[in-house]
Amino acid sequence: MTYCVGLLLQDGLVMIADTRTNAGLDNIATFRKLHIFEKPGDRFVAMATAGNLAVSQAILSLLTEGLEDPRTGEEQTIWSVGSMFNCAQLVGKAIREVYRIDGPSLQQQQASFDVSILLGGQIRKGRTRLFQLYAAGNFIEATADTPFLQIGEHKYGKPILDRAAQFTTSLEQGLKLALISMDSTMRSNLAVGLPIDVAVYRRDTLKADLNYRITREEPYFADLRERWSRALREAQVNIPAPPYWSA
Amino acid sequence: MTYCVGLLLQDGLVMIADTRTNAGLDNIATFRKLHIFEKPGDRFVAMATAGNLAVSQAILSLLTEGLEDPRTGEEQTIWSVGSMFNCAQLVGKAIREVYRIDGPSLQQQQASFDVSILLGGQIRKGRTRLFQLYAAGNFIEATADTPFLQIGEHKYGKPILDRAAQFTTSLEQGLKLALISMDSTMRSNLAVGLPIDVAVYRRDTLKADLNYRITREEPYFADLRERWSRALREAQVNIPAPPYWSA
Repeated sequence: MTYCVGLLLQDGLVMIADTRTNAGLDNIATFRKLHIFEKPGDRFVAMATAGNLAVSQAILSLLTEGLEDPRTGEEQTIWSVGSMFNCAQLVGKAIREVYRIDGPSLQQQQASFDVSILLGGQIRKGRTRLFQLYAAGNFIEATADTPFLQIGEHKYGKPILDRAAQFTTSLEQGLKLALISMDSTMRSNLAVGLPIDVAVYRRDTLKADLNYRITREEPYFADLRERWSRALREAQVNIPAPPYWSA
Repeated sequence: MTYCVGLLLQDGLVMIADTRTNAGLDNIATFRKLHIFEKPGDRFVAMATAGNLAVSQAILSLLTEGLEDPRTGEEQTIWSVGSMFNCAQLVGKAIREVYRIDGPSLQQQQASFDVSILLGGQIRKGRTRLFQLYAAGNFIEATADTPFLQIGEHKYGKPILDRAAQFTTSLEQGLKLALISMDSTMRSNLAVGLPIDVAVYRRDTLKADLNYRITREEPYFADLRERWSRALREAQVNIPAPPYWSA
C-alpha cells in the first residue's frame, strides 16, 4: 500500500509520500515513491506513484529514457517537455506504453494493471500545476476549489485535509497538514510506513525549496505526532456535553 | 452506505448509527439502523446494521418473530435469550437463516449477501458486551485492548478513535468521540447522512440511559462539528514549524 498527497497552494506545492511497498504481509520493502526532477532555473517536477511497483518503475524509466513523439520523430523526456500540461501528457503516454507492453501478460497472470500518479511542478514561465493520473493515462488537475489530491490509501488522512486545506493555506501550514494526514494514515494502515519523503516548491522559483526524507529517528515528526494526538484529545474534552444527556 | 460505531467502556456502552440508505446516487432514503430492545430491569440490547437493507430487515424480523431452538423445539427471540453470548449466537443464526433462504437467489442476480452487525448490551446479571457479527454469522467481541468496533464506511472516522478511545474513557467522552467520528465520516462520504441515532447504556442499569435521534435541526451537533473543525485548525497552526525548513 501507499499514501501520497499533493497540495496546490497559492504560494506553491507540497508533496508527500511514504516508502513502504509490500507483496503480502511478510514481504515488505522500502522504495522511494516521490521522485524529483529538478533543473534550477528551468523546471521543478515532483512525481509520486502508487500501485504496482513494476509498472511505476517502468513508467519512470520511460520518462527519463524517452518516448518518441510521432509528429516530430524526436525522443521526449521529462527533461525536454515545455510545459506541465505536456509533462502530464507525456506521463499519460508512458502509462499507456507500459500497458501496451505489460498489460496482456499481467492479465494472463490475473494481476491488475494498477497505477496512479501525482504530478506537480512548474516549467519555466508556465503555471505551477498539480495533476492526478489514472491507469488509463488520463488525468485531472487540482484547482483552487479542491487544492489537494491523494493517491493510495486515501481515506484515513482525508478528514483533516477536508477541514483545513485551502488554496490560501501557507506552505508551512500545508506541510504540517500533509504530515498530519500521513500520520493519521500510518496509524491506521500498517502498509503505509516510514521513511517519508517530502518536497516543498515555492511558486516561480524553479528549484526545490525542500526535498527531505523523514526517518524513524527524526525527532520533529515524532513530536508532531504526539502533539497532534494530545491536541485532539484536549479538543474533544473541551467540547461541551450534549444538552440532551448528562453523565 | 452506512457508518456505525460501538464503544465498550468501563462504565457502559455507546452506540451510534446514521440512517441513510442508497441504491445508486439518485435513490436515497432514511431507515433506522440502530435498533433498541429494552425491557427495563431485564435487558438492554442495541443492534446496528450495515449492508443490504433487505437482509438486515429479514434478520430483524426473525429475531423478533423467533427461530426454533433444535434442542428444545422452542422459539427463541431476542427477548427470550438468557445472555449476551446467546443473543450473539441467535443473531448469527438469523443471519445464516436469511442466507439459506435468500442467498441462492441473490447469487442468481449477482447481488452480494452483504451484512454486518454491531450488537451490544446486557441481559440481567450478565456482563455488558459488544459484538461484531459477519455475513457468515460468526462474531468477534470488543475487549479492553480494543474497546470500539465499526461497521460500514469505517476509515474516515477511525483516526480519532485510534487516538482517543480507551476502555477507561467516560461515557460522556465516548459519546462525543462517537459524534466526532460520525462527523468525519459524513464530511467525506455523501452516502452517510443525518439523522443520526445514538444510544448510551450505563453498565448494570438494564435500561437505556439515552436513546436519541439527532436531526438536521439539532443545534448541539452543528455546534460540535464547528468547534471540532476550529479546534483541529488551531491545533495544526499551534504545532511548531519543522526545524529542517522555514517558510
